[in-house]
Amino acid sequence: MLEAIKEEVWKQNLELPKHGLVKFTWGNVSAMDRESGYFVIKPSGVSYEDLKPSDMVVVDLDNNIIEGELNPSSDTPTHAILYKQFPELGGIVHTHSTWATAWAESGVDVMPMGTTHADTFYGSVPCTRYLTQEEIDSGYEHETGNVIAETFRERELGILDVPAILLHGHGPFTWGKDAKSAVYNAVVLEEICKMNLLARQINSYATELPQRVLDKHYLRKHGKDAYYGQK
Amino acid sequence: MLEAIKEEVWKQNLELPKHGLVKFTWGNVSAMDRESGYFVIKPSGVSYEDLKPSDMVVVDLDNNIIEGELNPSSDTPTHAILYKQFPELGGIVHTHSTWATAWAESGVDVMPMGTTHADTFYGSVPCTRYLTQEEIDSGYEHETGNVIAETFRERELGILDVPAILLHGHGPFTWGKDAKSAVYNAVVLEEICKMNLLARQINSYATELPQRVLDKHYLRKHGKDAYYGQK
Amino acid sequence: MLEAIKEEVWKQNLELPKHGLVKFTWGNVSAMDRESGYFVIKPSGVSYEDLKPSDMVVVDLDNNIIEGELNPSSDTPTHAILYKQFPELGGIVHTHSTWATAWAESGVDVMPMGTTHADTFYGSVPCTRYLTQEEIDSGYEHETGNVIAETFRERELGILDVPAILLHGHGPFTWGKDAKSAVYNAVVLEEICKMNLLARQINSYATELPQRVLDKHYLRKHGKDAYYGQK
Amino acid sequence: MLEAIKEEVWKQNLELPKHGLVKFTWGNVSAMDRESGYFVIKPSGVSYEDLKPSDMVVVDLDNNIIEGELNPSSDTPTHAILYKQFPELGGIVHTHSTWATAWAESGVDVMPMGTTHADTFYGSVPCTRYLTQEEIDSGYEHETGNVIAETFRERELGILDVPAILLHGHGPFTWGKDAKSAVYNAVVLEEICKMNLLARQINSYATELPQRVLDKHYLRKHGKDAYYGQK
Repeated sequence: MLEAIKEEVWKQNLELPKHGLVKFTWGNVSAMDRESGYFVIKPSGVSYEDLKPSDMVVVDLDNNIIEGELNPSSDTPTHAILYKQFPELGGIVHTHSTWATAWAESGVDVMPMGTTHADTFYGSVPCTRYLTQEEIDSGYEHETGNVIAETFRERELGILDVPAILLHGHGPFTWGKDAKSAVYNAVVLEEICKMNLLARQINSYATELPQRVLDKHYLRKHGKDAYYGQK
Repeated sequence: MLEAIKEEVWKQNLELPKHGLVKFTWGNVSAMDRESGYFVIKPSGVSYEDLKPSDMVVVDLDNNIIEGELNPSSDTPTHAILYKQFPELGGIVHTHSTWATAWAESGVDVMPMGTTHADTFYGSVPCTRYLTQEEIDSGYEHETGNVIAETFRERELGILDVPAILLHGHGPFTWGKDAKSAVYNAVVLEEICKMNLLARQINSYATELPQRVLDKHYLRKHGKDAYYGQK
Repeated sequence: MLEAIKEEVWKQNLELPKHGLVKFTWGNVSAMDRESGYFVIKPSGVSYEDLKPSDMVVVDLDNNIIEGELNPSSDTPTHAILYKQFPELGGIVHTHSTWATAWAESGVDVMPMGTTHADTFYGSVPCTRYLTQEEIDSGYEHETGNVIAETFRERELGILDVPAILLHGHGPFTWGKDAKSAVYNAVVLEEICKMNLLARQINSYATELPQRVLDKHYLRKHGKDAYYGQK
Repeated sequence: MLEAIKEEVWKQNLELPKHGLVKFTWGNVSAMDRESGYFVIKPSGVSYEDLKPSDMVVVDLDNNIIEGELNPSSDTPTHAILYKQFPELGGIVHTHSTWATAWAESGVDVMPMGTTHADTFYGSVPCTRYLTQEEIDSGYEHETGNVIAETFRERELGILDVPAILLHGHGPFTWGKDAKSAVYNAVVLEEICKMNLLARQINSYATELPQRVLDKHYLRKHGKDAYYGQK
């Protein structure tokens, strides 16, 4: 079942090492099929070289394995809660990419410093709080998803306007309307995390991108008046 | 028409990912044909793997498409204004290369710290001001070109003496007598942006290159007394 | 003799340049055979391209060459003392990988800043003291092993709970139940050394990972309640 | 003439881009033939892809071209003066490698922070002064060689004990008993320049390597009691 999605999820998982975002098995991509209510995700701890499309695991939104021989990614409950709470999402990516993970460890938001940021993220990429002991005990990966949702709700951010988050002390999650755009957003996030630190090292008084330039760049690529790319 | 130039522009566009200057479609190269008054530029948002010479778009200096099936780069009006205002230019490059973009985000000029800089740029590479709301509204990409021209005029810089600029909060543009030298200058700019930050991190009191060494290195490679390379 | 182990040690040595951990001959991997009491190690100063499985040297725990045409790694006595003092060890790696070596030169422990650390190391990776003149004179490489053992003893650390150390002014050693896991730990150490510096550069007030998250991540991958990966 | 040396110089020039030490034509390797009194050097401004062994230029110590169709490297007079003043030298390398060039721009010596340094350089790698206007006018590349010699003389350093120097505001020169070891030293210099900055960024109070460890590491690889590698 869901053979085309398995093929796509497999392919997008392979994009992660190709873009230098993962070492070993430190990353996973999933894609949601809204019709069936199931999503497809990478198996846990299987190396990218050995991965086949048929290894992908089909899971429902309550983390039941619907099809597959292998255990799904240990982060599956985080993916599930995000798909459940945000119907706009079609694909999710988690990595430990170097620069985004360093930002997650630093515990601060990634403020927009330039148009490379503004072309993809409409404002700061937020960093969550740490999970409490109670949350860890009651289901770490599930509660991780809840903390992501809480952060977007409290900050009143549109889930596709800022398609990324940093988990404090852990690393980035990105998402999109499908798996491919979630991977794209993971690459952009890694790059802006690098650029932002460098910009502040060059000039520690460097300012955030003015709102007017942020608006211009985000909106020339997104929304009804976008004019970047081909029709 | 302009088949040789299309081939060259296509080839020089492919140099950008080869030198690690672009991710996805984040860059474009154009070349000017002064005889016809047209220039040739990469299409917008097309990935480098899929690019063919016949995809290149022929445009006039008022941004009219003369030939081509695809939309030209969204940065086309910036290229057009530069070709119009500076008759010496034969090629232009725009990228979001990591280190030069970080410098653009920092908002400061790239001062000459060493001979790697002086071999190509005869003095600091300037960083522009941000565009105003009025400029953004009246034609963002066109006004971007005007801000570049303004910066060179106000600072009384020769356009080929310092063949590069940083757009504050955006990224670098480089140029040259042809597309190939514009790409060369983009590579040099990225490298000196990296070296300059590192030099100041090693020794925050490090001084700019003395004028006498800047002169010597620039002039052994440029002008009538140059003696670097083969005849 | 020990042909399977020679093959494995050869293969794991080749992983070091593949993961970007060594230049030239600056690294070595060994594996212990507890049954015979011998270990197998890379020959000294032989380049990775020229290495063959039959070049691997069989040594006993008193540094006697049991089999092999070539001199074993000059670090052999360090490996021997570690295998002698820690019966849990099956593989040991030494490299001069860039970021871990820089941390070793800085002389400070690598504190846990994130879950990338916690997934592999259960607490700070310690940095040793320098060796004294007496220790250097009495047998530098042998005493290096003793200083590693002293550090773990004094800090009351489990050798497999924190399978790595930094030698002050020198570089990292990592280990594991076999050569493959020792190489894995060398890759992780390099990555967290990079992430930790970056995290503190982004936010110099960034805090260590809370103990509760360290516990959760280490224990979901290690010990009897681990649930990461396949059975 | 000198066909074997031409082949070797060509081969060692190709090592520079392979080790990531040069972009475009920014580097050159030469080798000295003491018997004939001539040295062989890369032609000026020829790209590494196009280079053939027969392109190498044979020059005498007064910079006369003895054989070759092409102009020799513009840095030829620097090589010549070094071969003349230091009879121990058999090979010389000049690059603009990123980290060593940044150190040269910073204007400070590379102090020994670890054994990666001590294995190759017996003490700090010195940084020269800038050249004066008079020196630039009287023969820039020739006087560059004289400033290198002056630096070693004034600091009373053995030319093969510390086989490298940084030219203030320019970049590194390295050398050795032959071209291959000069290239090796260029790779090591680049690596320690990177490690040293990182070590001080991790811990700005980090200390230099104690003399006793410097001695131990340098002497286990160099001199009559060396025991690293194969006989």
